[in-house]
Amino acid sequence: MSVSNLFNQKLKVVNIGIGSFAENIRRAGGTAVSVEWQPPANISPNIFRTLNAKKETISKANSEALQRILNSKPYLTNMARAIDVVPGMRKNLLMHAGPPITWERMCGPMRGAVIGALLYEGLAQTPEEAETLAASGSIDFEPCHEHSSVGPMAGVTSASMPVFVVKNETFGNVAFCTQNEGLGKVLRYGAFSPEVIERLRWMENILYPTLKKALDVCGKIDLKNIIAQALHMGDELHNRNRAGTSLFYRSIAPAIVETANSPKIAADVLRFINGNDHFFLNLSMAASKATLDAARSIENSSVAVVMARNGTDFGIQLSGTGNEWFTGPALVPDALFFAGFTKEDANPDIGDSAITETNALGGFAIAASPAIVQFVGGSASDARQYTLDMYEITVGENTSYQIPSLDFRGTPTGIDAILIVETGTLPFIDTGVAHKNPGVGQVGAGVLKAPMEPFAKAVAALAARFEHKHIRTEE
Amino acid sequence: MSVSNLFNQKLKVVNIGIGSFAENIRRAGGTAVSVEWQPPANISPNIFRTLNAKKETISKANSEALQRILNSKPYLTNMARAIDVVPGMRKNLLMHAGPPITWERMCGPMRGAVIGALLYEGLAQTPEEAETLAASGSIDFEPCHEHSSVGPMAGVTSASMPVFVVKNETFGNVAFCTQNEGLGKVLRYGAFSPEVIERLRWMENILYPTLKKALDVCGKIDLKNIIAQALHMGDELHNRNRAGTSLFYRSIAPAIVETANSPKIAADVLRFINGNDHFFLNLSMAASKATLDAARSIENSSVAVVMARNGTDFGIQLSGTGNEWFTGPALVPDALFFAGFTKEDANPDIGDSAITETNALGGFAIAASPAIVQFVGGSASDARQYTLDMYEITVGENTSYQIPSLDFRGTPTGIDAILIVETGTLPFIDTGVAHKNPGVGQVGAGVLKAPMEPFAKAVAALAARFEHKHIRTEE
Repeated sequence: MSVSNLFNQKLKVVNIGIGSFAENIRRAGGTAVSVEWQPPANISPNIFRTLNAKKETISKANSEALQRILNSKPYLTNMARAIDVVPGMRKNLLMHAGPPITWERMCGPMRGAVIGALLYEGLAQTPEEAETLAASGSIDFEPCHEHSSVGPMAGVTSASMPVFVVKNETFGNVAFCTQNEGLGKVLRYGAFSPEVIERLRWMENILYPTLKKALDVCGKIDLKNIIAQALHMGDELHNRNRAGTSLFYRSIAPAIVETANSPKIAADVLRFINGNDHFFLNLSMAASKATLDAARSIENSSVAVVMARNGTDFGIQLSGTGNEWFTGPALVPDALFFAGFTKEDANPDIGDSAITETNALGGFAIAASPAIVQFVGGSASDARQYTLDMYEITVGENTSYQIPSLDFRGTPTGIDAILIVETGTLPFIDTGVAHKNPGVGQVGAGVLKAPMEPFAKAVAALAARFEHKHIRTEE
Repeated sequence: MSVSNLFNQKLKVVNIGIGSFAENIRRAGGTAVSVEWQPPANISPNIFRTLNAKKETISKANSEALQRILNSKPYLTNMARAIDVVPGMRKNLLMHAGPPITWERMCGPMRGAVIGALLYEGLAQTPEEAETLAASGSIDFEPCHEHSSVGPMAGVTSASMPVFVVKNETFGNVAFCTQNEGLGKVLRYGAFSPEVIERLRWMENILYPTLKKALDVCGKIDLKNIIAQALHMGDELHNRNRAGTSLFYRSIAPAIVETANSPKIAADVLRFINGNDHFFLNLSMAASKATLDAARSIENSSVAVVMARNGTDFGIQLSGTGNEWFTGPALVPDALFFAGFTKEDANPDIGDSAITETNALGGFAIAASPAIVQFVGGSASDARQYTLDMYEITVGENTSYQIPSLDFRGTPTGIDAILIVETGTLPFIDTGVAHKNPGVGQVGAGVLKAPMEPFAKAVAALAARFEHKHIRTEE
């Protein structure tokens, strides 16, 4: 049923979950029948009762979270080596995508990326040495997200790697992300062959200083504006970044030309970016991280500020539950696989790139980018429906990010974990797919739904906080 | 009624116009009622009888025209001064948009552009001198289209102006178009102030040689590929060229950097292109012209190979009627006007840019670019409907140019003048709007339908050819 039809009809509602919803509908003149119903998530009725009692409090907190997301203004302001700017970065730290994980539980591509990063840093000379070192306990592994950072796929980020510095000018917070390496055999997909390390060195010694100098001359770049334009140009800013990359390229190219050490270097840098339509992904991710970090730690809010995968676990954080992670097993995407690969080869969902979905982009904006649904056999109307479904689990609509084919409706913004467990509608994510073994790389690109488990746990934890407060109040 | 619904139902047809259509439907098991009906164009029933008798012949010729359009492969291969490459170009010739016109009948913006071009060529020192010269009879005015060329808006092109050289590699023919000047006070909108002439000189002395050198190094640029990608990125390649401009820019920037006389010149050229999202329009037009010229002069074909306006008349040419022009009064577009202007200020429709519609782009592809319909108050579904309507008057669907929101359906290709007069459905065009007085420039952008008169005349002329042949055969 289309939304326009829905609103043209007198409401007849079968209410499931929180009973007061039915009361609101009856008050508005609709018909509602409440039924006994077990929500899709395995959640006790007590939790729903607790949350229902706090409905207005939660709603107010979620409005605040939404406003902070909408008011955020992420700009690319600088570039630097991770060790010089990322809080808590140190020589023996490797940041990684997703929730916390030990070397023992890491999936193949993340292990591959760890090996590559240790070779790149000169901390090991061979892959075998690197494995031994990684397992020795002398290397620390911590989530990018715990260091104001995000990393695509394995997300492995080490001290020497240059990062984009993205500042949320409204709230003053800063987020970081590495430069995108391109497709094929690349570190983020778990490859660590000599060509991978050599490319990383070129990115450190040529690409990074050239971009940094250009940025110093052309000034900060408005990422929110580029993202908004790119949505009008067929990107959803996760799996498709061709327009974003083009607009970023156009913004910075003249300054690159004027400041590069030589015309050859300028041309090499422009060719590298031109050869990689995903170059803007890392900026889209850092912009999303800078946006969502401004909505962290709002007491009572059930809005997700992180969705991230380490290739083993899918983890989320809610605004109202501080720095606590809620996890469940990461699932394997449905994908278009490159020649010679099948779903058997695919690693479960991996990467911090779901920060784009958390920020109303990616799968949430997929109606703007039907090409992505098409390559897994879907149609443009499927793409529209995926986006329409996401309005069911979000608290508002974006005021900057719009979808042309939905008459420029704002993208669904502010994922509400309570709505997810109530409706059973899960966040729709589109993503790259890594081979499950270290050293291979990307094998496809596809789509999937987030698992219910992290949201169910998060909602329970939020309810527990209310119970706890309630008890404290009584004491 | 949606197309999918249409095809799911048993056909019940009220046939209007050519009676044999009803017979075909009856033969296919449908129900058809023929009614007396006066087609929207004021065309005698004899003409329809003649065309009906030649239906198969025309259909075969139109298939050939369609195939030539679809098989065309336009590449940007070179740049040169008009006088050195445009056939028939000479010192005292000014080419202009649309069908032939005299100085006396020219609209304001075309007169303004003529004045500007004479100043630019040094043939006059003041606007007054230029007007006197233009009226003296010593300057020849001829349509761009008669010189394998196209020009946006006034389309005035003089001997010294640099042009893009676009070669149709399948058929070997070549088309030409000037470089786009940007928006605001520019020659093509009829402005001729010193800043306009100065910009044209910079384009001749800096932009052109820099682009030409870069092109020599990077090699030919595949315009069909860029256009196909740009349609996936929100352009319709007439009034919106942001993606096309971005992709062209990305293609040529590294070579510009490597070959420019200095980094400053390279940066200036990149900034100029980056500052003008319409830069690609002139390439879209030249690609369309190179495509359609390959479909010219196919005996018996009712497919339009030119739609063009000189600001006074709207003129078309059909494949089957050689170089003959069929004209009617140009209409005034519905537009979003810049602050301070109204429809009263608008000149009637002007420019060769409707070659994009003739090539299945522009208004015919507007479903890909709902932003354009939005700024005249329409919705994304209006945009889809405009494109769907165009399938009624075209002989096929494009195999390269696709519309994402229509599930990547090929754009409506090969405008059939007979279908236009039969159905009354007119070509949908989106366009820039010039002030009606010389020297002012652009006042808005909008949409309109082509007038019926040129198509009615063209169809009558095609029918007359059959009559003539018939008589000759009898003799």
